[in-house]
Amino acid sequence: MNLLLLEEADFIAADRVVLSDRRLTHMQEVHRSEVGDSLRVGRVDGLLGSAQLLRLEAREAELSVSFEHAPPAKLPLTLILALPRPKMLRRVFQTVATMGVPKVILINSYRVEKSFWQTPFLEPAAIREQLILGLEQARDSVLPEIVIEKRFKPFVEDRLPAIADGTLGLVGHPGEFPACPRAVEQPVTLAIGPEGGWIPYEVDLLRGSGLNPVQLGSRILRVETAVTALLARLF
Amino acid sequence: MNLLLLEEADFIAADRVVLSDRRLTHMQEVHRSEVGDSLRVGRVDGLLGSAQLLRLEAREAELSVSFEHAPPAKLPLTLILALPRPKMLRRVFQTVATMGVPKVILINSYRVEKSFWQTPFLEPAAIREQLILGLEQARDSVLPEIVIEKRFKPFVEDRLPAIADGTLGLVGHPGEFPACPRAVEQPVTLAIGPEGGWIPYEVDLLRGSGLNPVQLGSRILRVETAVTALLARLF
Repeated sequence: MNLLLLEEADFIAADRVVLSDRRLTHMQEVHRSEVGDSLRVGRVDGLLGSAQLLRLEAREAELSVSFEHAPPAKLPLTLILALPRPKMLRRVFQTVATMGVPKVILINSYRVEKSFWQTPFLEPAAIREQLILGLEQARDSVLPEIVIEKRFKPFVEDRLPAIADGTLGLVGHPGEFPACPRAVEQPVTLAIGPEGGWIPYEVDLLRGSGLNPVQLGSRILRVETAVTALLARLF
Repeated sequence: MNLLLLEEADFIAADRVVLSDRRLTHMQEVHRSEVGDSLRVGRVDGLLGSAQLLRLEAREAELSVSFEHAPPAKLPLTLILALPRPKMLRRVFQTVATMGVPKVILINSYRVEKSFWQTPFLEPAAIREQLILGLEQARDSVLPEIVIEKRFKPFVEDRLPAIADGTLGLVGHPGEFPACPRAVEQPVTLAIGPEGGWIPYEVDLLRGSGLNPVQLGSRILRVETAVTALLARLF
């Protein structure tokens, strides 16, 4: 936790917060904070700033806070992701928040197991929890938007063309395709497949909507690693 | 598991193996293999090839195997890593094996908790287990070398200069440093710090041995994400 992210409910006055949850435990056990300490804070979907620890007790802490500067810029990117398996999904939410992805669209794919859509990790509160962890890591305060588009074909045929319009449209896909470009200058729409990859029909449909296949070499990466590697290379 | 990695002990003849462990379970439950199926295989520290499933029973499987082609090239890299916390360490072993890192040197750092050195995940069998998982993911067969150098100063002062000699020496470190270069042509020696980063004294010592600080932007990445992002950008 490189940033203490504050929610509206934490505020007892415009410049005062009281904390009693995992953030308190983290201050006590990891940071070993003491009264008078200064901490980096951010307001969820708001500015970053600093806090001073006024009171630290076993069950709650009180801090005075001020907010001065903007959070880091997001990447100019819409990330389309075939729904990963639940354990991976949680880590991917953290990773996209840390890396600065502003919008993720989760879609179905032939190789996504149907049961994955039942995971409690897709519930809004569970998604938010992982995103907050990722933002705290990166010292960002703005939650990425997570959109669930369960049906592949209607999304790719009907809505993807407008999303990809005016952007560099890419599909991460191993095979005989051009290498993923580096340090691009324009906004990107990037689709990353499931474990086992997209099927050819899906690649064709994505291509028809403006996304062209690119590859990262012969090594097959886990979804989380592929997300990080593609973004590090593109931006 | 995109590749079935075979150990010497699996062979009952030059072209026959019998499997009874997690690889059998994986064939049964994930691949849902059937007799006659063809599978990608590799020999640990040897060639890649293919196998045919001859016999599949509840407790063991027999395959005929042949080995024809070389594993993918490794990156021209020595990765020096401040020892991550145990849970992260396991994932990092998988990630470096997947990404094609040939050699990792784990070192101490001021911000590495002493207790991390006690983890059972540093035992050779535990390291090997994670590396194998990473290799199977990437369809590689050659185990990375993992070296443990517990004392920072003697390693950095006495042995690092010879390792870094003739390579592009880099330290990943957030701050006012040049951006990490992209698509480099020469071999690299790269050091990545612990959570919380290197302390200035360590950065100075690393610099004295030929490693210059570079950064990836203001977002602070978890160690596993930093490894992937730096490698994807460098190579």
